[in-house]
Amino acid sequence: MIREDKGMPFLLRYENVAWYEDGQVRILDRRVYPREVKFVNCKTYKEVVLAIQNLVTQSAGPYTAVGMGMALAAYESRNLEKSERIKFLEEAENALRNARITTASRYGIITSRCLEIAKDAIANGEDPIELIVEDTVNSLNRRYTTMQKVGDSLLELIPEGGTLLTQCYGETIIGTVIRAAKRENKMFKVICPETRPFLQGARLTASCFAEEGFDTTVVTDNMIGEILSKNMVDVFSSAADTITEDGSVVNKVGTLQIALLCKHFGVPYYVTGIPDLGKKTLDDVKIEMRNPEESLLLGGVKQTQKGVKGYYPSFDKTPYEFVKGVVTDKGIFSPEELKNYFKDSDGKFY
Amino acid sequence: MIREDKGMPFLLRYENVAWYEDGQVRILDRRVYPREVKFVNCKTYKEVVLAIQNLVTQSAGPYTAVGMGMALAAYESRNLEKSERIKFLEEAENALRNARITTASRYGIITSRCLEIAKDAIANGEDPIELIVEDTVNSLNRRYTTMQKVGDSLLELIPEGGTLLTQCYGETIIGTVIRAAKRENKMFKVICPETRPFLQGARLTASCFAEEGFDTTVVTDNMIGEILSKNMVDVFSSAADTITEDGSVVNKVGTLQIALLCKHFGVPYYVTGIPDLGKKTLDDVKIEMRNPEESLLLGGVKQTQKGVKGYYPSFDKTPYEFVKGVVTDKGIFSPEELKNYFKDSDGKFY
Repeated sequence: MIREDKGMPFLLRYENVAWYEDGQVRILDRRVYPREVKFVNCKTYKEVVLAIQNLVTQSAGPYTAVGMGMALAAYESRNLEKSERIKFLEEAENALRNARITTASRYGIITSRCLEIAKDAIANGEDPIELIVEDTVNSLNRRYTTMQKVGDSLLELIPEGGTLLTQCYGETIIGTVIRAAKRENKMFKVICPETRPFLQGARLTASCFAEEGFDTTVVTDNMIGEILSKNMVDVFSSAADTITEDGSVVNKVGTLQIALLCKHFGVPYYVTGIPDLGKKTLDDVKIEMRNPEESLLLGGVKQTQKGVKGYYPSFDKTPYEFVKGVVTDKGIFSPEELKNYFKDSDGKFY
Repeated sequence: MIREDKGMPFLLRYENVAWYEDGQVRILDRRVYPREVKFVNCKTYKEVVLAIQNLVTQSAGPYTAVGMGMALAAYESRNLEKSERIKFLEEAENALRNARITTASRYGIITSRCLEIAKDAIANGEDPIELIVEDTVNSLNRRYTTMQKVGDSLLELIPEGGTLLTQCYGETIIGTVIRAAKRENKMFKVICPETRPFLQGARLTASCFAEEGFDTTVVTDNMIGEILSKNMVDVFSSAADTITEDGSVVNKVGTLQIALLCKHFGVPYYVTGIPDLGKKTLDDVKIEMRNPEESLLLGGVKQTQKGVKGYYPSFDKTPYEFVKGVVTDKGIFSPEELKNYFKDSDGKFY
């Protein structure tokens, strides 16, 4: 089996994202990493759905979990009669696809492909389990290979020995820029805002860089102005949940204010990822509001007086005028140039 | 005994700041409020010093605690011979004054006055304990009365039914603006950034407003850009650890970035408090760096991977061009006009 996760930090190695083996799917619990290195072992696809819903894994993690969940469904149904087995797999596909509503369409690309593979295998009297695992690994390989191009380009923008400011957890791009830096023997420092309320910056991004030997500092989210005023940052970069056709960004709440502050202090902001064809401007993106109570918790414990309200937009919107460049698998584009990105046809990604 | 804390929120009533009674000083534990309403009972002045060092009380709280601590020292030494008693009180004065190095000069104004009162009382054969308590209450009364003028002026700047954005915990000014609003029957909404790492905004400021019936929302510190971009704020106001003669501000880290973001979105920033004669510009203020590990903790539990560094400046510096006005006990001054504040002689404050 070809694998594209060599040289990746712990969090991004395939076994530590989600992995099917011997009738179980093992998922790293990102809610407690690195305080604890704990895996959730799912014995049914329904437990995989639950794990995704409970944010055991998040960001790109569920793309792997739903594929491995389909392999588990094929295992669970191994003793069923052909048509019963297909019915079972169809139910699993529907449940896994819809594990999280906002990303259902992306999950669905993976789960429906797994279902087709299973149906073909069953029709041909083959075992679908290994074929589904292989397809899921191929999907991971595709994403890691594509994102390596993004990581390579991002590395070029960071001065040797300079300081990169991140936001939240850029998942695969964090891994690929680290891998590129090690390949090129180019070191830089990293400052990670902690990213309240769930601390993806402090717990996930900072862990990846620190494990690989980078000089890594975590700051609270209210320190960005202070560190910029002291010229402590050379480049700000974040991934994105959506990059619109005009080069604007939808990403974890906090991105907007960092981008504005960077503009004020003359620090360039580069967003990384694949632009979203069909989303022309920020008006085409609806922001998911999460449970407001989550902003009142610290480590699961409510901190506020009775009657105090919370507020929790998942994402915020950064207009293109605060984006210096969009770092893609086809190179770096200014927002004005980004329309050229879409000229070539796109390959398969998920 | 005249008291100026009528109509104040729970946190600001004298008994809930620090209070001497029957050979004990009782201090509200602000580290856990409002999750728990817990008092630390100090039976010696040394326990008062420790409580201040351990941040049981903070902000303006120690001004009261050191005075009440002197009353406790007078109680502890009640059976000593005159000259021994004075020696004991001198040691107590020195310890309480230096409980926190950065604010020692302000604590010293209070403790040295208490010591003089005690010496006079002992020389005249009077009981110093009640006299020290009375002086400490008078000092509180002076600050509450002076700060009421600030609160009154701040209220005028908030539109009826509008929204005030705060930062950290403005202590007495929070109480006086609330009292002014109730007196004038003028309501407004409040948004409190939580203020990591110790959540003074979420736990202290929000509690004061919510307890008094204001519509109060807590946001994480990375949501300020988002709420400003949605026009959710009319006025931003913070207290200050220092207001320099040119109208610049030193305050809890995070103030700078909120002020910059407000400027971008056209929201005025008013700082409240008494300007510091002798501190001409921000260059005259040295920022205290706290233990960097504190930025890596969430509710006392470390969240980061081995090797990850922290960073924790207590305060940041906001230049006067981002300050719309300085709200003082003598009215509201633009930074350019602030030199006029110092023309009249100043009364006693602490």
